Amino acid sequence: MELTRVVALAGGVGGAKMAVGLQAAVPPGALTVIVNTGDDFEHWGLTICPDLDTVLYNLAGVHNPETGWGRDQESFRLLEAMGKLGGEDWFRLGDQDLALHLRRSEWLQQGARLSEITDRLRRALGVPSLVLPMSDEPVRTLVHTDEGDLPFQHYFVRLRCEPMVMDLSFVGAESARVPEAVAKALHNADLIVFCPSNPYLSIDPILSVPGMRRLLQEAPAPKVAVSPIVGGTAIKGPAAKMMRELGQMVSPLTVMDHFDELLDGFILDSADAEIAGAVQVPTLVTETLMTDLASKTKLAQEILTFAGQLAETRNTFSRPGRRPT
Amino acid sequence: MELTRVVALAGGVGGAKMAVGLQAAVPPGALTVIVNTGDDFEHWGLTICPDLDTVLYNLAGVHNPETGWGRDQESFRLLEAMGKLGGEDWFRLGDQDLALHLRRSEWLQQGARLSEITDRLRRALGVPSLVLPMSDEPVRTLVHTDEGDLPFQHYFVRLRCEPMVMDLSFVGAESARVPEAVAKALHNADLIVFCPSNPYLSIDPILSVPGMRRLLQEAPAPKVAVSPIVGGTAIKGPAAKMMRELGQMVSPLTVMDHFDELLDGFILDSADAEIAGAVQVPTLVTETLMTDLASKTKLAQEILTFAGQLAETRNTFSRPGRRPT
Repeated sequence: MELTRVVALAGGVGGAKMAVGLQAAVPPGALTVIVNTGDDFEHWGLTICPDLDTVLYNLAGVHNPETGWGRDQESFRLLEAMGKLGGEDWFRLGDQDLALHLRRSEWLQQGARLSEITDRLRRALGVPSLVLPMSDEPVRTLVHTDEGDLPFQHYFVRLRCEPMVMDLSFVGAESARVPEAVAKALHNADLIVFCPSNPYLSIDPILSVPGMRRLLQEAPAPKVAVSPIVGGTAIKGPAAKMMRELGQMVSPLTVMDHFDELLDGFILDSADAEIAGAVQVPTLVTETLMTDLASKTKLAQEILTFAGQLAETRNTFSRPGRRPT
Repeated sequence: MELTRVVALAGGVGGAKMAVGLQAAVPPGALTVIVNTGDDFEHWGLTICPDLDTVLYNLAGVHNPETGWGRDQESFRLLEAMGKLGGEDWFRLGDQDLALHLRRSEWLQQGARLSEITDRLRRALGVPSLVLPMSDEPVRTLVHTDEGDLPFQHYFVRLRCEPMVMDLSFVGAESARVPEAVAKALHNADLIVFCPSNPYLSIDPILSVPGMRRLLQEAPAPKVAVSPIVGGTAIKGPAAKMMRELGQMVSPLTVMDHFDELLDGFILDSADAEIAGAVQVPTLVTETLMTDLASKTKLAQEILTFAGQLAETRNTFSRPGRRPT
């Protein structure tokens, strides 16, 4: 069974890499990426959406290949000048990058919706895939730590994830709504992929939007997740550290359990092959490290094949090991 | 008579050069520059105050010495990226320069007054002189031309002053007020200098703020103007072209007539020595071209000496050739 209309749920760098692979593996325009906006924040009077931008830059191929976020061949002259004027300079905004923040912030000021703005930006950047924020209304991740409650970027960038995380909340989620384009994409999808993003910081905010979880449950497409935990640690970011702080085992199984009721399939790295038998849904074991376009595309193609088999099996048998939803 | 507390009325580049000379010629902190804000505009969602910035950058010594405006060793990477995103790129905003626009715009959003913001910026830039906007309320110069009514920067930058000027209006002036610091500076001044700025575009907006003209008339200090017209043309900008379009003679006498009731003395360039006899107030004839710090400072020192003589004469005799005010 060939799957073309693919929806990916993504956070920042890990999600963007997976999205790049999927974009390369499906026809132009067949990929829709639903992106976490819990990381968004107000800075220097601008509204900054780091995950949306990371996804856009990666899909446009203008990202910094070393960091995974920000623009390639970036300069930081405005940031330096801002520091000299006494402004905050802990969040590294590049000169080219700032053009996008200014454009988005001006449009938001004028009353445009974030979905509409994101669509204008992805067209300007020549991105063929749809990129959709999880909601148009602001949702802001608040990190409850041993050093107090921290707005996400203060935890993540300013304090380099050093405080111990006790809990998270998604401020504004209760009054956020799933944008119509997101609901439509989920309903029409042939495959839904939870990218290897931080489950707590990147995927949970998406799931916190009222109705999102139900739309995922009701979507007829198979839903698979790629583990962001490989060989006992996170490929990038604080996922493993947070699992420990939240009293969880640092394991792909923790990710699987976290999303269990939503998933029809799981993708494990070969480094974790020995635990494949413990996963309660069909599991693909493969190389999941995405270091270049070839490895991103190869992983995406394998996921498409795996999910195609899942979809065929689902049409024949009831799914094993699933709790009623 | 030694004059120390000097107030300068200034627009952009010409005014800023004169202010630099005056700053060098008086004790630190003794100069106050009252700056035109009629050129201010909203662009990319930011509030931009070109004349305030030109004065600040020149007084801080971080201006571009070739253009007279903008920052030295500037780059334009954000502007380029903005153009690629489909944004307007006709107004050349540099990367370092934008730090200041962001900082000011954020403070304005937070409700701070322009005077207060300008004072924070001049301190951050290490400027010893006071720099004051002509008002905290927005006043916007509208240029009535043969191509229709144009916001100032559209006339000045986008259309390069090409349309024929028929009239000017200062939108918002009727509800603007003279900031208290401006009134105080004028009252306490030992000397008030009308810089060689465009009389219509730079000085008239300052005079359009209700009460400003009366404060100038009532200020006990001598008031002198430096002619921006030298040898039948303007040193910089469209002053001469506008004089022709407005049916005026392109001459320092036109500038003198324009401000006549306010002035006690006039400063003419040596190139125009032959018309000195036609000026109705005491006139200093000297080299007025300001090409470097030395020539700026020398002109300022000559103005201080000239005005000191004026003040002494005024204390002895009634002033010649003045209409009753």
